[in-house]
Amino acid sequence: MNIKNIILKINNFVSPNCLITDIGSSKIESSKIIRKFLKKKISWVSSHPIAGSEVSGPEHGKINMFNDRWCILIKEKNTKKKHLNILNKFWKKIGSKTVLMSPEKHDKIFSMTSHLPHLVAYNLVKSAQEFEKKQNYNLIKYSAGGLRDFSRIAASNEIMWRDIFFDNKNNITKAINLFIKNLNAFKKDIYSKNNKSILKKLVQTKKVRSKIIKLKQDIDKPDFGRN
Amino acid sequence: MNIKNIILKINNFVSPNCLITDIGSSKIESSKIIRKFLKKKISWVSSHPIAGSEVSGPEHGKINMFNDRWCILIKEKNTKKKHLNILNKFWKKIGSKTVLMSPEKHDKIFSMTSHLPHLVAYNLVKSAQEFEKKQNYNLIKYSAGGLRDFSRIAASNEIMWRDIFFDNKNNITKAINLFIKNLNAFKKDIYSKNNKSILKKLVQTKKVRSKIIKLKQDIDKPDFGRN
Repeated sequence: MNIKNIILKINNFVSPNCLITDIGSSKIESSKIIRKFLKKKISWVSSHPIAGSEVSGPEHGKINMFNDRWCILIKEKNTKKKHLNILNKFWKKIGSKTVLMSPEKHDKIFSMTSHLPHLVAYNLVKSAQEFEKKQNYNLIKYSAGGLRDFSRIAASNEIMWRDIFFDNKNNITKAINLFIKNLNAFKKDIYSKNNKSILKKLVQTKKVRSKIIKLKQDIDKPDFGRN
Repeated sequence: MNIKNIILKINNFVSPNCLITDIGSSKIESSKIIRKFLKKKISWVSSHPIAGSEVSGPEHGKINMFNDRWCILIKEKNTKKKHLNILNKFWKKIGSKTVLMSPEKHDKIFSMTSHLPHLVAYNLVKSAQEFEKKQNYNLIKYSAGGLRDFSRIAASNEIMWRDIFFDNKNNITKAINLFIKNLNAFKKDIYSKNNKSILKKLVQTKKVRSKIIKLKQDIDKPDFGRN
């Protein structure tokens, strides 16, 4: 069921005392639909917890899923401070750190940190499949050298990701363009064996890893055979 | 020290009774150098164990590192069966499964399952850095939604990866071209909201994940906060 239909149902049952939130991954489009269809008396403030994995549904719940994870609270022009406070308390109670963002800023940031990475993972796996078919090589079994890690991300729920890609298509298109521009530059460096340029890039990107670990967004234990 | 200089040193010390192997990630170029500079009496058969992680050096060794991992043994025109048997025994003894490949087949397959994934990971992190700078957003801290996983791969040793990219540049260039072609098709699907085409792709790529788990190249436990 899409968000419009959910709202039309909710409209009949929710009292003005309730505060509704959602945990969608893109915010501009859903915010438009909420503004258009939600009964004026009902309150809705969006959230986006940056937690979870490649599996979906309550059966994959985990008790410490939100511990130390960021949760974005969406603040729009008319969002009441009272409602933000309630929502903030809720997310903190289950372990999250919270931060306020506009729908526009949210969708820009996550086009780069989440939507593009997922698309790139899907695209890498698709390219490997095509290559396998064309070359008639059985290559998936040699995936432990890198492809394996992308396949995990590319196993995420397809309906959810279709909706995210479509909802945030403008930001994602820009992110894809930046990505392709940089990949073409890498290709040129590789083809011309530009030692200085490529080393600079590889050293620079390595720094992000230390930053992510320092920010407790990942652990520093190296990932071997996962056994 | 590059492989040519290593060979020139080895030439003076290794007896014809020894069998040498290496564990390099690309094989066509190194095979040429070995053929050109190694003393004719000395035997060298290349290996490529598909094991390891983003960290390098003996201090990151692990006792079960090669367990159930593939190790590619490189079979060339003049490779002696006797030498392949010795090498095969060695890798099996430390837990690996082995398979024979020509340098050409090896470099093609790994351009797709390992070299391109690493390049794409580096490129994604680089694009995120550029975006962060340009937008003046502090976005790395919100990396748990996907970017985080790429940053691990992009933290691999830069000298090693420069050499792999340069050595296997022809196959990698082809792999990049296929990847960009597919990414542009995804972009088109997203921009035109082509529901049928995008769902087909997302469902197809998901199947690779089950295949990888079935082939024991990864575990099926979902990856949450890694805590």
